[in-house]
Amino acid sequence: MPPTTKAIAIIAGVGPGTGASVARRFAQSYPVVLLARNPENFNALAEEINSSGGKAIGISTDLGDVSSVANAFKQIQSEFPDTPVAAAVYNASGRFVRKGLLDMAVEDFVAGYDVSVKGAFVFSQHSIPLLLKHAEKNASADTASNVKSGNYPPTLVFTGATASVKANALMSGFATAKFAMRALSTSIAKEFAPKGLHVAHAIIDGVIDIPRTKEWLKDQPPEAKIAAEDIAESYWNLHTQNKRAFTNEIDIRPQLEKW
Amino acid sequence: MPPTTKAIAIIAGVGPGTGASVARRFAQSYPVVLLARNPENFNALAEEINSSGGKAIGISTDLGDVSSVANAFKQIQSEFPDTPVAAAVYNASGRFVRKGLLDMAVEDFVAGYDVSVKGAFVFSQHSIPLLLKHAEKNASADTASNVKSGNYPPTLVFTGATASVKANALMSGFATAKFAMRALSTSIAKEFAPKGLHVAHAIIDGVIDIPRTKEWLKDQPPEAKIAAEDIAESYWNLHTQNKRAFTNEIDIRPQLEKW
Amino acid sequence: MPPTTKAIAIIAGVGPGTGASVARRFAQSYPVVLLARNPENFNALAEEINSSGGKAIGISTDLGDVSSVANAFKQIQSEFPDTPVAAAVYNASGRFVRKGLLDMAVEDFVAGYDVSVKGAFVFSQHSIPLLLKHAEKNASADTASNVKSGNYPPTLVFTGATASVKANALMSGFATAKFAMRALSTSIAKEFAPKGLHVAHAIIDGVIDIPRTKEWLKDQPPEAKIAAEDIAESYWNLHTQNKRAFTNEIDIRPQLEKW
Amino acid sequence: MPPTTKAIAIIAGVGPGTGASVARRFAQSYPVVLLARNPENFNALAEEINSSGGKAIGISTDLGDVSSVANAFKQIQSEFPDTPVAAAVYNASGRFVRKGLLDMAVEDFVAGYDVSVKGAFVFSQHSIPLLLKHAEKNASADTASNVKSGNYPPTLVFTGATASVKANALMSGFATAKFAMRALSTSIAKEFAPKGLHVAHAIIDGVIDIPRTKEWLKDQPPEAKIAAEDIAESYWNLHTQNKRAFTNEIDIRPQLEKW
Repeated sequence: MPPTTKAIAIIAGVGPGTGASVARRFAQSYPVVLLARNPENFNALAEEINSSGGKAIGISTDLGDVSSVANAFKQIQSEFPDTPVAAAVYNASGRFVRKGLLDMAVEDFVAGYDVSVKGAFVFSQHSIPLLLKHAEKNASADTASNVKSGNYPPTLVFTGATASVKANALMSGFATAKFAMRALSTSIAKEFAPKGLHVAHAIIDGVIDIPRTKEWLKDQPPEAKIAAEDIAESYWNLHTQNKRAFTNEIDIRPQLEKW
Repeated sequence: MPPTTKAIAIIAGVGPGTGASVARRFAQSYPVVLLARNPENFNALAEEINSSGGKAIGISTDLGDVSSVANAFKQIQSEFPDTPVAAAVYNASGRFVRKGLLDMAVEDFVAGYDVSVKGAFVFSQHSIPLLLKHAEKNASADTASNVKSGNYPPTLVFTGATASVKANALMSGFATAKFAMRALSTSIAKEFAPKGLHVAHAIIDGVIDIPRTKEWLKDQPPEAKIAAEDIAESYWNLHTQNKRAFTNEIDIRPQLEKW
Repeated sequence: MPPTTKAIAIIAGVGPGTGASVARRFAQSYPVVLLARNPENFNALAEEINSSGGKAIGISTDLGDVSSVANAFKQIQSEFPDTPVAAAVYNASGRFVRKGLLDMAVEDFVAGYDVSVKGAFVFSQHSIPLLLKHAEKNASADTASNVKSGNYPPTLVFTGATASVKANALMSGFATAKFAMRALSTSIAKEFAPKGLHVAHAIIDGVIDIPRTKEWLKDQPPEAKIAAEDIAESYWNLHTQNKRAFTNEIDIRPQLEKW
Repeated sequence: MPPTTKAIAIIAGVGPGTGASVARRFAQSYPVVLLARNPENFNALAEEINSSGGKAIGISTDLGDVSSVANAFKQIQSEFPDTPVAAAVYNASGRFVRKGLLDMAVEDFVAGYDVSVKGAFVFSQHSIPLLLKHAEKNASADTASNVKSGNYPPTLVFTGATASVKANALMSGFATAKFAMRALSTSIAKEFAPKGLHVAHAIIDGVIDIPRTKEWLKDQPPEAKIAAEDIAESYWNLHTQNKRAFTNEIDIRPQLEKW
């Protein structure tokens, strides 16, 4: 179902896992903008999307840096002038270390906040006006008509983690950042829902199956890990929700996860 | 996408709102069984589904009564012998009264529990073996293949409410029942996920737009109420999740809800 | 600090653990009424309190039975006519079995509800009017004056458990009851706080050190289990809170508990 | 009950409200160290405590500044060499603005984090070793003996707020900081409880009655606001808990608060 309106999707934090899968999924309906610090993280992906009938551009962006994010959005607007954003996904996490509190450097502790919270805040400030532009087109409150037209309410999705709701020992840097990001998501949802913005927070509770986690849970069946493409499918389903049934939080875990 | 396996869906608690919409949605893929005490609640709906290419049967069932539920499942098995259940939705709520604690009769207080908790327990005991039968067919862990085959993991969905997580004054009967149902849902999810069952709990946070609530929020736009068909769409999306990304809880609210 | 007003405390669910310790603690300031089905659970305790300068009476009560609770309160009023209740503690739990959902009898599933929820509801209906009678004496909002006079706001405390907030596999009966009791506690707190009643719910998260658990965690230091007398101290501290700082929920766990 | 061991208490974030009341309460048992940026916030209080039989020193400290906190602890150790810390209370909140997300400067958004989270982290790093020194003295697991000796487990308390668990519109800066502080508190509790440290987080849910809020809720009775001295009493009660019954989170609200 091709959208009737020209609109784009922005994926912040594109790596080999969730970000890439989300980009592929949303590229089925929208031109996608891929933000990551390291171009290696989006070059091949952009090429893959562009060569298979979609459209993608990558912009090298340090999501923990205010002016780098500002520059990325300048590029977005020059590439897609006056174009509404149908979906924005904030999938970036700062570097974090698993360490006892007394052994952790202050810089390590705050590193998670800089990207997961401050970065998410700045990204939201830039993307929300463009998302609201999409809302103005007034996506119908009627399921059948939206599905047919592919004209869904603008959606801002934040990728959380187990640590968004559970603060374990040795995880102070990561958990403080993820708890805070969840608060940011809710606060934005409450402020902008009346204006038509759909905000959702996803608690990813489990190990995502990506190259870096290949050796983890090796002796277990595939259902012990989350498939990034299934996270992407769930994000897409959030995006297609109508105004009369917004989901603001979901959890996602693999079948074999203990919780 | 027609399912490759013969399987049915059971909707418990069919009225003019969520239950009917969920039945219609799942009837697009499965024969559906409609349970409600009053045949008036399912007769027209079954006819509608049967006359539009689907298949539906209604069984008059008092979901608060153990033997009535047992009888319903006997009928189900006689009608659909050896048939796996792909999805079971527990959407029934007991009668409840909004009353101060000191003015509430014990029978009024427990009425919610009888249907929402004891009934949900008994319904689960009967439906889980049939759901696990569907799991044996081993729905793939691969999104693309599941979508193509329409062979999704068996899903048990419970309909919760604002009162599932918020116990307000004058709501003791309803909130105790809904909190308890949420606990039941989680306990079942944890016990049966390793066997392939997907259990989800939906917190419906807002007024559903049904004939009975027609006069409520009249001066507000449609986005102030939840559309039952959109709840149904979200339930369907839960059902289509693969084993590598189960969502166990979602909230659903209309765009204009304060929360 | 002897209370200036004649008032009593009622402890429902007196066994060898929390109930007995709470009774001893509150007996330092009030005549206490001990409710338990089996008189063996309160006879020695009442004697102990009576012989050491306090006052205690035991009433054999089946807390899961509506008329048994009504009878208990009749006896209370005949023993202590027109006497306000300063504190009421609901510490009773129904029998519960740890069992897979498919193996659990309906009677086993509902047994927890009957005592922990319906019983707590009925107990509350009887005790709240007597608690409000204590509120009328208008406990001061001033800490210093309350401490001096020992005239604390009337307090209703519910004993919860880990299962009040965490619904594990095989625990469906217990968790549904405890979730529901927590909802009841909150609903009552919100309804009656404006009238001066202080309601608190305690999440007891760990093994209490009682004769029945003697063999558990044997190889661990004492800090691996909760001391019942320390729960009692925490309940007393809740009771002494003034109107300008009510705590409605606390968790209690031993130092070595993993959570 | 004078403590048998020489130990001090540290109160970070002393203003005219909670901080001052907590300091007064703990000064009944320990020499207290008062940390605040502005000496006006502790000078009169220190004098008051010193002139009424207690001991207090104030140290001008910017809790959002890493080296300022380090300097404060150098002063503490020079003033009280080799002295264990019995209790440390982190009561500081950064400046925060109530503003729409699109109107908020990045500096305003992060200001709350710098003090409430980064500051709390740095404060914890400095105080925990001194708190653990107190734990070595091995506070008894026995209530009666602890009460008699006044030798309580070392306690670290964080002051949270409604926004620690509820992220409202226009409150993104404050709520992200408070959610994160709550995560920090839990992570520390889990890491250091096995070593004997008692960590508690207090959700202060309501308006505290301080000079700055004098005009708020003016037409309501005193029970509509929280008394700072009652918060202090609750913190003291947390401190006196034994190892066999630690409370890690309490909520505190005035009788007339809606929640």
